[in-house]
Amino acid sequence: MSEQLSRNDTVARLRETVAALHAELVRYNLVAWTSGNVSARVPGQDLMVIKPSGISYDDLRPDNMVVCDLDGVVVEGDLSPSSDTAAHAYVYRAMPDVGGVVHTHSGYATAWAACGEAIPCYLTAQADEFGGEIPVGPFALIGGDDIGKGIVATLSGHRSPAVLMRNHGVFTVGPNAKAAVKAAVMCEDVARTAHLARALGQPLPIAAEDVDSLYARYQNVYGQNAVPSPRR
Amino acid sequence: MSEQLSRNDTVARLRETVAALHAELVRYNLVAWTSGNVSARVPGQDLMVIKPSGISYDDLRPDNMVVCDLDGVVVEGDLSPSSDTAAHAYVYRAMPDVGGVVHTHSGYATAWAACGEAIPCYLTAQADEFGGEIPVGPFALIGGDDIGKGIVATLSGHRSPAVLMRNHGVFTVGPNAKAAVKAAVMCEDVARTAHLARALGQPLPIAAEDVDSLYARYQNVYGQNAVPSPRR
Amino acid sequence: MSEQLSRNDTVARLRETVAALHAELVRYNLVAWTSGNVSARVPGQDLMVIKPSGISYDDLRPDNMVVCDLDGVVVEGDLSPSSDTAAHAYVYRAMPDVGGVVHTHSGYATAWAACGEAIPCYLTAQADEFGGEIPVGPFALIGGDDIGKGIVATLSGHRSPAVLMRNHGVFTVGPNAKAAVKAAVMCEDVARTAHLARALGQPLPIAAEDVDSLYARYQNVYGQNAVPSPRR
Amino acid sequence: MSEQLSRNDTVARLRETVAALHAELVRYNLVAWTSGNVSARVPGQDLMVIKPSGISYDDLRPDNMVVCDLDGVVVEGDLSPSSDTAAHAYVYRAMPDVGGVVHTHSGYATAWAACGEAIPCYLTAQADEFGGEIPVGPFALIGGDDIGKGIVATLSGHRSPAVLMRNHGVFTVGPNAKAAVKAAVMCEDVARTAHLARALGQPLPIAAEDVDSLYARYQNVYGQNAVPSPRR
Repeated sequence: MSEQLSRNDTVARLRETVAALHAELVRYNLVAWTSGNVSARVPGQDLMVIKPSGISYDDLRPDNMVVCDLDGVVVEGDLSPSSDTAAHAYVYRAMPDVGGVVHTHSGYATAWAACGEAIPCYLTAQADEFGGEIPVGPFALIGGDDIGKGIVATLSGHRSPAVLMRNHGVFTVGPNAKAAVKAAVMCEDVARTAHLARALGQPLPIAAEDVDSLYARYQNVYGQNAVPSPRR
Repeated sequence: MSEQLSRNDTVARLRETVAALHAELVRYNLVAWTSGNVSARVPGQDLMVIKPSGISYDDLRPDNMVVCDLDGVVVEGDLSPSSDTAAHAYVYRAMPDVGGVVHTHSGYATAWAACGEAIPCYLTAQADEFGGEIPVGPFALIGGDDIGKGIVATLSGHRSPAVLMRNHGVFTVGPNAKAAVKAAVMCEDVARTAHLARALGQPLPIAAEDVDSLYARYQNVYGQNAVPSPRR
Repeated sequence: MSEQLSRNDTVARLRETVAALHAELVRYNLVAWTSGNVSARVPGQDLMVIKPSGISYDDLRPDNMVVCDLDGVVVEGDLSPSSDTAAHAYVYRAMPDVGGVVHTHSGYATAWAACGEAIPCYLTAQADEFGGEIPVGPFALIGGDDIGKGIVATLSGHRSPAVLMRNHGVFTVGPNAKAAVKAAVMCEDVARTAHLARALGQPLPIAAEDVDSLYARYQNVYGQNAVPSPRR
Repeated sequence: MSEQLSRNDTVARLRETVAALHAELVRYNLVAWTSGNVSARVPGQDLMVIKPSGISYDDLRPDNMVVCDLDGVVVEGDLSPSSDTAAHAYVYRAMPDVGGVVHTHSGYATAWAACGEAIPCYLTAQADEFGGEIPVGPFALIGGDDIGKGIVATLSGHRSPAVLMRNHGVFTVGPNAKAAVKAAVMCEDVARTAHLARALGQPLPIAAEDVDSLYARYQNVYGQNAVPSPRR
């Protein structure tokens, strides 16, 4: 099979994946109307697959996803790409291990972002997934590289795959698009529980060494790709 | 095709649109029982298509929508129109560019309305859609033109397509019914996030010039009718 | 048709109605597991149709509804009736105009009940449906007539078809079961918005004469059985 | 039928039950992504059936459930068991009457756990199901027997079938898996209402003797296995 065919197959598969993953944003109530988006890097290419701008989640299909280069220029597709394309593209250029990016305005996480407060690590699930607090990035206007720069600068100092962009919303990254979607779902889940705990009383922090221990274990043991469990 | 036929086609299409758009109010939990309604102006006619009063969202179909003139008098349909018909009609008479009106009692937005507080602009999404704070209109009794007057007087001084009527709920407008529904969905979304931010701590305001910049960009660049993106 | 046949038809119809109306409790998130119930009086008979105890909402069908007399004694059905049957029965005995009763532990309304606070009338929708505040009834143990007495004593002094039983939950009444279900849905909706308003700031009360005016109008004008709208 | 066949039938039935019960965790919004799990003891065997680790709720089927012994060692199944298997196994070893265990991070209950606060008994429904407050267990790291020990030590002193593990989430037990799932659903429901009551004002406690009376009655009278109701 020629290299061109192989690239076409990869893009076709990622169009399916990216279109389908938006349903998880809807299922977990992370988005209203058309306000969140998922993208995936095309491995080995300077390309990404991303949601078209302003199209209803009900109407997303593999064939209306947009393929852009990593400057955000459209290379395949009749529709304009997400208005957040520049931010996704900046992340892919700056972080070579990132294979998927997700952006939402999910309510609880965005409330923390509106206050400019990082989410403290009150929960073992947060230690597992985020390795500590979920950090806040700067205020940035849409339209250039400012959002992308803010994401990358903030994530660089943290284990967290999620960043709360001030007054704006959440960006998450992962080795692939599904992992970035999982991070977006878990970010809203811990943001909500932490908010509810703050409304109730005095949440108890988890000791830093316990956070480290939980994070190390989870990254190695959880799921089906982990060290095998004992078996007779 | 005669003018009469053309009018009939337009009305038939709007009956479908208006009936279907109520499903978005249900999907986004903006309504309980039968408490919200959508209408559309019939372009070029002094007519509007509106929900019948007290009918379950499950039972809305194109053929039970009600056609009224802009005094709220029924001209087609066996059912009584929404009890909010007078307010919709007033808006269409006073604001010729408005093609759609939506009314809900969506919970977070109505909580702001119950406190008589405008929603401050803490979120870039609010700057995009509403161009700043979402204003509060006066207390008004149902049954005459008082609600309509309050909506129009309040919206006249703002970029916002949404107004919080005191102790009552939300009215939104748009160039067509779908745009007004989008404004109702986004109004509840930002009302919720702003409420959650206030419950958490001290939300940070967005500088006025940044609000202006975000609003200007969004009105021109978002979605598929925007300036085309660069393309090779 | 003999009187016996006619009674059988009426009971059969009410079994369908009562079984189906429980879906509205589920749809509006008023219930968890099996914790709410609907009943209907059999008109002209000293009988009522009620949910069986501890049966999942998924499994409710017309033929597993239970028919009891107004002392709560089963007259038709293989299953035990709702553990709240005595309260429903007491209401039917004491309030001859009541044709339907609903009980839930819906969360926001029950939060007011846990604080022993009536819901003040901050919302025009509450003035419409409840004619003012939603009152709180006494603490009462299940198992005798204490709950029923508390409901009836509290509702007697109010226009409200809903009562918040202290530390317990909501009971609503209506001329028929559907009206009582509507009252349960609207009670939770206004309880939620009033709670959100209190969490936000200082909700503004509605003047007593405006509450009276809204209530009088709504009881006469809303829906399809109202005074006809003007028509050419 | 041989003993071996009988065991196979029992395991096959429990695979169906456990796979299906996870849908209740999803329905009641107790879980995000793959964060909760259900198990059932195989009666008369030192075995349990449990969810595989990191598998989506959409993909759970009887044949991908995992059978472990009560040390957590896999005896049937190609997938790794839940990362919480050690805690489930410890509970089954220590509490011979427990036939089902459920673990979630449901938001409101986990908010109480993050504050290290037991849920006070403000609600008759809580008195019914939990017999008083829902207690808090210690902070414990995952991976050994610490979580299991904390669950068992905390539940031993209480009537409650639910324990809030500090900074972590909820574990519930029951005579079978369905009862443990019901306890998880009701735990989140009362945690939510108690949280809403605390946000509103001063919730009123229920007197200890009333809690006892409610608990005693509910354990004996509720549902279809109760003392028969009077019948003509």
